Amino acid sequence: MNPRVYNFSAGPANLPLPALEEAQRDLLCLPGVGASVLEISHRSKKFTEILETAKANIAQLLGLSDQYDVLFLHGGARLQFVMIPLNFLRGAGKPADFIVTGHWGADAFKDAQREGAVNMAWDGKPTKFSRTPKDAELKLDPNAAYVHYTSNETIEGVQFKAEPNTGGAPAICDMSSDFLSRPIAVEKYAMMYAGAQKNAGPAGLAIAIIRKDMLARIPEGLHDMLDYRVHSREGSTYNTPPCFPIYMVMLTTKWLLQTIGGLAKMDEINCRKAQMLYDVIDRSGGFYRGHAAPESRSTMNVTFRLPSEDAEKAFVQEAAEAGFHELKGHRSVGGMRASIYNAMPVEGVEKLAEFMQAFRTKSGK
Amino acid sequence: MNPRVYNFSAGPANLPLPALEEAQRDLLCLPGVGASVLEISHRSKKFTEILETAKANIAQLLGLSDQYDVLFLHGGARLQFVMIPLNFLRGAGKPADFIVTGHWGADAFKDAQREGAVNMAWDGKPTKFSRTPKDAELKLDPNAAYVHYTSNETIEGVQFKAEPNTGGAPAICDMSSDFLSRPIAVEKYAMMYAGAQKNAGPAGLAIAIIRKDMLARIPEGLHDMLDYRVHSREGSTYNTPPCFPIYMVMLTTKWLLQTIGGLAKMDEINCRKAQMLYDVIDRSGGFYRGHAAPESRSTMNVTFRLPSEDAEKAFVQEAAEAGFHELKGHRSVGGMRASIYNAMPVEGVEKLAEFMQAFRTKSGK
Repeated sequence: MNPRVYNFSAGPANLPLPALEEAQRDLLCLPGVGASVLEISHRSKKFTEILETAKANIAQLLGLSDQYDVLFLHGGARLQFVMIPLNFLRGAGKPADFIVTGHWGADAFKDAQREGAVNMAWDGKPTKFSRTPKDAELKLDPNAAYVHYTSNETIEGVQFKAEPNTGGAPAICDMSSDFLSRPIAVEKYAMMYAGAQKNAGPAGLAIAIIRKDMLARIPEGLHDMLDYRVHSREGSTYNTPPCFPIYMVMLTTKWLLQTIGGLAKMDEINCRKAQMLYDVIDRSGGFYRGHAAPESRSTMNVTFRLPSEDAEKAFVQEAAEAGFHELKGHRSVGGMRASIYNAMPVEGVEKLAEFMQAFRTKSGK
Repeated sequence: MNPRVYNFSAGPANLPLPALEEAQRDLLCLPGVGASVLEISHRSKKFTEILETAKANIAQLLGLSDQYDVLFLHGGARLQFVMIPLNFLRGAGKPADFIVTGHWGADAFKDAQREGAVNMAWDGKPTKFSRTPKDAELKLDPNAAYVHYTSNETIEGVQFKAEPNTGGAPAICDMSSDFLSRPIAVEKYAMMYAGAQKNAGPAGLAIAIIRKDMLARIPEGLHDMLDYRVHSREGSTYNTPPCFPIYMVMLTTKWLLQTIGGLAKMDEINCRKAQMLYDVIDRSGGFYRGHAAPESRSTMNVTFRLPSEDAEKAFVQEAAEAGFHELKGHRSVGGMRASIYNAMPVEGVEKLAEFMQAFRTKSGK
């Protein structure tokens, strides 16, 4: 019997089984090295090779030109909420625009406020963070230092289906929960960043992709540790980086390239998985109610409610007993959330869809 | 044949084999959880248990009273170089004292300068960072916001054998490279911190132990991510913490408690290991020359030179062929460095001592 359950955790989340198996096989001893990846210097030949492979895999998956630099950073996406305004707002002498479509965008907005003027270009709060804005709704400052938005809001399950038109200002996007889940129009971004722990690897690492011309905008006088120029110059080893998470990113991106066959294929699979669950919701006669507006539905986090909190409790419990774990929604919004990132197998989603249908039938609806 | 070599890396460094073996065994599936420790929510019951066990093990090993809080933080010791002055210098209205006995202390001094007035209470640079100061040499400001020092300088191999008398000001100590290697007089510290990647776990995690009354000194207006009060209040899960490094700290501290039997025992073993190498140096008739003054010699990093750079090159190469890896000193000082942290087996040091004697004999000295 396979002791692994179907894990719908919003993050840290599922990793591809082949990546886990390779990490397990080599955990005492990397081939040809005689020590664990946990034990070798971040400046050793082997670790340099791991880090460079992880970078190259990301560049290949996204189709990055050499105008972009891939950085591996400490502190999760949360430290990026601080570093972005330190680097690009504090010394800019102009405000930054924020498009806020959920919990994380709102937090990024709050952190930026400490470093300079910020303008709410669109606020989804009045509509309960249930949709993304149309371009015509955005109140953008043509002079903005940058425009920040969140491609996928993990808690609400709301996702931009295409890049918003941010005008001429540099677009900076928090892709924490849909990074590497689909192809993107790279040239539209001045910076993309993501906590690794959804689609790319385990917790404890942020990945930032910065268009190199942006580095010239950074003011003097920042702490080295908080200055993107320093991390870029030092190739992500200004200090000892989160080595093991970088190793796992290398293995996960290898799986994306070699087993899945790239981001277009991954996107196809992800859309198929999400559609199965949204179909169950839409065909449930109102028993399951999706949170997000249909045109803004996330392929990564499927959020829905049941007719009552008692029914939701029963759902979570019976699902767990049937091997579907971590389906409870975030404490700030309640309800259910099925996070179905890249590494969630199609089979897991099929079985959850069947469970959802059976649960509704059993409830007499 | 055991494929594991003797790894004298200065960090990331050796981990205890039983800790690695348990991590390997459970890497696909934590018992009773059905998912990898890399895949579960940092707020799940199981991960909370892992984090609390790691904290409790550290408290037990050091004999911490409940006046102290143990924090798991992102960014390595390097981000602490920034956070300490942000939290304890910027708003203090008085200077901080620095005792600088090597490379890392000098870097911490530089970072602190950006946040307020800093006073060099003792500078080891004129004596090539070869020793720690006597208490009488310290030029302490009785009014200092804090006194910062580095208990063990990894690059130079210089270690305080007892806590310096820092007067009445709060003592803040960077213990990155001798944390958990020996018992300490906890009550002498307002704060201790360490990057995990020497004695406590893998890279990507800093551990900070703060006396709780210090938290009241922190000024308002810091970014949450850089505010110790926030991390304390949130029990080190303000954001997704570096989960896997925390798990490895839990396993490593379990080994220290259950297999080694605590820090006094660990210290005994560490002193024995270091003595073997210093004996070879002292009895080599000048062939091997230690960098550190005998009374300041580190039990963690044994630094020495050979009669010529050619001899040093030959030493590194022949040592590697004989299974002793990573003996080259830091690029900033040259020579040799044998890092013999907690997890380096006695046998590895015995064999290195034999190799050193044989190398000298072969060289005709």
